[in-house]
Amino acid sequence: MQNGAGCGSLSRRQLLRMIGVTAGNAAMYQAMSSLGFAEDSPYRGPIDLQGAPRNTSVLILGAGLAGMTAAYELRNAGYRVQVLEFNARPGGRNWSLRGGDTYTELGGLTQHCQFDQDLYINPGPWRIPYHHRGILNYCKRLGVPLEAFVQINYNAYLHSSRAFGGKPQRYREIKADYQGQVAELLAKTTRQQALDASVSREDQEKLLASLRDWGALDKTYAYVPGDASSDRRGYKKAPGGGMSARPIPSEPIGLSDLLDSKLWQGIYSGDTFDLQTPLFQPVGGMGRIGDALGRELGPLIRYHARVTDIHQDARGISVQYEDMLSPGSQLTASSDWCLCTIPLSILAQIPMNVGPAMAAAIAAVPYASAVKVGLQFKRRFWEEDDDIYGGITYTDLPITNIGYPSSGYHSAGKGVLLGAYIYGVDAMEFTAMAPPERVQKAVDYGSQIHPQYREEFDNGVAVAWHRSPFAMGCYGMWNSDTRARHYDDLCQIDQRIALAGEHASYLPGWQEGAITSALDAIERLHRRIVAQAGKA
Amino acid sequence: MQNGAGCGSLSRRQLLRMIGVTAGNAAMYQAMSSLGFAEDSPYRGPIDLQGAPRNTSVLILGAGLAGMTAAYELRNAGYRVQVLEFNARPGGRNWSLRGGDTYTELGGLTQHCQFDQDLYINPGPWRIPYHHRGILNYCKRLGVPLEAFVQINYNAYLHSSRAFGGKPQRYREIKADYQGQVAELLAKTTRQQALDASVSREDQEKLLASLRDWGALDKTYAYVPGDASSDRRGYKKAPGGGMSARPIPSEPIGLSDLLDSKLWQGIYSGDTFDLQTPLFQPVGGMGRIGDALGRELGPLIRYHARVTDIHQDARGISVQYEDMLSPGSQLTASSDWCLCTIPLSILAQIPMNVGPAMAAAIAAVPYASAVKVGLQFKRRFWEEDDDIYGGITYTDLPITNIGYPSSGYHSAGKGVLLGAYIYGVDAMEFTAMAPPERVQKAVDYGSQIHPQYREEFDNGVAVAWHRSPFAMGCYGMWNSDTRARHYDDLCQIDQRIALAGEHASYLPGWQEGAITSALDAIERLHRRIVAQAGKA
Repeated sequence: MQNGAGCGSLSRRQLLRMIGVTAGNAAMYQAMSSLGFAEDSPYRGPIDLQGAPRNTSVLILGAGLAGMTAAYELRNAGYRVQVLEFNARPGGRNWSLRGGDTYTELGGLTQHCQFDQDLYINPGPWRIPYHHRGILNYCKRLGVPLEAFVQINYNAYLHSSRAFGGKPQRYREIKADYQGQVAELLAKTTRQQALDASVSREDQEKLLASLRDWGALDKTYAYVPGDASSDRRGYKKAPGGGMSARPIPSEPIGLSDLLDSKLWQGIYSGDTFDLQTPLFQPVGGMGRIGDALGRELGPLIRYHARVTDIHQDARGISVQYEDMLSPGSQLTASSDWCLCTIPLSILAQIPMNVGPAMAAAIAAVPYASAVKVGLQFKRRFWEEDDDIYGGITYTDLPITNIGYPSSGYHSAGKGVLLGAYIYGVDAMEFTAMAPPERVQKAVDYGSQIHPQYREEFDNGVAVAWHRSPFAMGCYGMWNSDTRARHYDDLCQIDQRIALAGEHASYLPGWQEGAITSALDAIERLHRRIVAQAGKA
Repeated sequence: MQNGAGCGSLSRRQLLRMIGVTAGNAAMYQAMSSLGFAEDSPYRGPIDLQGAPRNTSVLILGAGLAGMTAAYELRNAGYRVQVLEFNARPGGRNWSLRGGDTYTELGGLTQHCQFDQDLYINPGPWRIPYHHRGILNYCKRLGVPLEAFVQINYNAYLHSSRAFGGKPQRYREIKADYQGQVAELLAKTTRQQALDASVSREDQEKLLASLRDWGALDKTYAYVPGDASSDRRGYKKAPGGGMSARPIPSEPIGLSDLLDSKLWQGIYSGDTFDLQTPLFQPVGGMGRIGDALGRELGPLIRYHARVTDIHQDARGISVQYEDMLSPGSQLTASSDWCLCTIPLSILAQIPMNVGPAMAAAIAAVPYASAVKVGLQFKRRFWEEDDDIYGGITYTDLPITNIGYPSSGYHSAGKGVLLGAYIYGVDAMEFTAMAPPERVQKAVDYGSQIHPQYREEFDNGVAVAWHRSPFAMGCYGMWNSDTRARHYDDLCQIDQRIALAGEHASYLPGWQEGAITSALDAIERLHRRIVAQAGKA
């Protein structure tokens, strides 16, 4: 069923176009659905690498998701595969930090994670959108069970230290009030004939009816206290059972306060393509995916391998590396071809004889700095006290996010929050402190939102990606200028070397970018290998 | 911690008010959070029934959630409790229908559910909102594990048989386009000074900035094809990795088509208080809650008991019932007090000597008719072909809903959909057919949305609530007139008899209504019992 981009045979898309032309749109839609392909996704089903020449070897640098996906597929296609990995574990940024784990950042600061059993934090990626078909498909094939990741929680908070006296507002209140005020204003101008020039009278009538329902307006098109608005923003006293069960409406926030608070900035993130519901997480932590690929590849991965030089010539690839368990050792791995998935932040410092175009591309992409803090608390007070099950609170404090766990609901015992997800300059300031102070700072900030923090805090860890020895950054930060000048050069195969990873994608920071870039790279590599074998 | 309505001691609310007056709002907020009570919920923590007089008996009619909650609490408080239940199982409308189960509706039509192991349909309630604290608390205390119920799926469909040639649209497309068009129109009128009379110039500037971000408008405040709109509605070709990974924007639907389709009616249900994310379901089916309560109560529940007469006098309660396993038998249960949770649809037909006010209330509430259809398919094509994991498709066809399972994602083997949730007149028409034809009709309708239905359908069940021998309806349909005239009379204790159930609540059809009404009723009953014992 897969459709290699540009392959000679009739693609599904071409087939559908033919059906559309000859049999009309309804038939085409039927065919699209039955072909399982109603949308053009960057992932189009399991890759087809038929015809691998015998005894052809590919050396893969990095056992993150890009490197392991490539190794898995190339091995299955009959290639001889070896993977060199710096860490002692597979996964790279796909990683769950658990009680008993240790982590040492650049400079030698080591943290010992003291979370209770089964509790974890994902320092890297933590959610999978429904349309990231590549990674979802690997989860399925590898038997990694998924559960829903709660992205939007209408009962979580939007918080500004400069609005409402610092009191956090519930997401549902801000969302309902913004939507209601917008609907009321547009209804008002519509009824004042302000739309006459651009919208037909008939459509204006339909628009008004829709605004009333969508915006929870009353019969006069006003957004006011009452059942309609409280059925969105929540009640002063919610409806119940028995006597005295009658609900009491709540009081909406006025337009001016709402706009002034800027909290409306928190209400549409769940509408963006990558954060639309549903999202998923592997049961037990994001690292389960890397674990599964690592198990699958077994001895094909050599851990503790720090690559120091990458060399290619007409005959093949030669990579120098240090076995970190024997400091100062120098080992060599050889192969016919190479797929390098090392983050550009690190690759830029490793000698590699590629052409000037790829070299310039490698040097051109800065990396994002980010800190994630995991905090263990003595009890799940966010559920017990605040009725917050999963989801995210957003704040203008440097911690930016408080993420509540989307699993183990109602568990007795301790619980772990994402206590901070810090970007940019704030991240740099955080890493001027040692990890225990970063954790304490996250607790201090968070207690402005959850006063229970002070009483309930137990222990924490703080992972700074720009201080990570295996990534030295969170992800590649492309802008439109660097894309235009360097992206194709980065992705183009340079003699015997191809690059892959989230940095070689239009999905920066997403695992799907790593996987689709790896599949794209090995497909092109495979075609080149087959073509050269044909010539030989 | 609980705060009985109207109790003499200082309530939490009063305490908070005092703190607010003396120490200011910030301190009050702190106190509110640490008291776990930032909102007035109809459920205020475990009930306190201290001081139950020795040897006092309460007979409970019905082992649904209201009856079992009451039995559980009254037993724990020291009352002698017996429960009479018509069915052979606990739970009532809290019910999961599984492979191997049989179900016989009024008229004797019996269905044998043929679902595969671990697959089920919830004919009754299927989701628990985050703010239904009563039922959530019982799940926690009874050890019923929860998982997220996906209510909103941006990739599920909104479907009108009269719009877009019958082609289903993705939720994200309709939502993004409606929001974008509304934002564009309001931005336009704002810039044309149409708001000058009602909104300050400063707020207008802030409003414009918010509309651009919230509505995904371009720099000129237009909602047009491009990165901004595609990052909401989805792309023609989504971004990916490697070469040719550049995204291609999609084409928004025009305002007129959008309004004409009425599909905007499907985009705000997830904003309503009871359907806001997150919602939950017990792992393994909603019936796990009833099962847990039933296990807890054990021999206190007498099954197969059809109540035929309820009599009270100055000394106590006497209830006649038939043991359904011995047709024609007539048994008597006696007690001091009675909590009756039998649905009004059935209770109205049982002789019971209550006063005219309660009798009129019982007769006044009509019951909703509804049909739910569960369909088993040979594979989870909605995930495999359509990238729909959980959530609901809404259609103007009589089936109204297609609900995708929020569990077992990526499972191999068969899968079960909610194939229809039919209301009102359509429900009556459906039940004019025998169950196999209802199922076939649901398959026919659904195949207009998922053409795979025809190929993949395996078997199905259809539960018509208005044909249910134990409920004779889905839930009590109050309107504002019947509420005003009868609600208090229904809830008021009549001598020795109190009523409870979703019908005695402001949450019709919700399990939380049943539970909070039961707690409210037994609290009042307890106070009356204690008061009478004091007088005796």
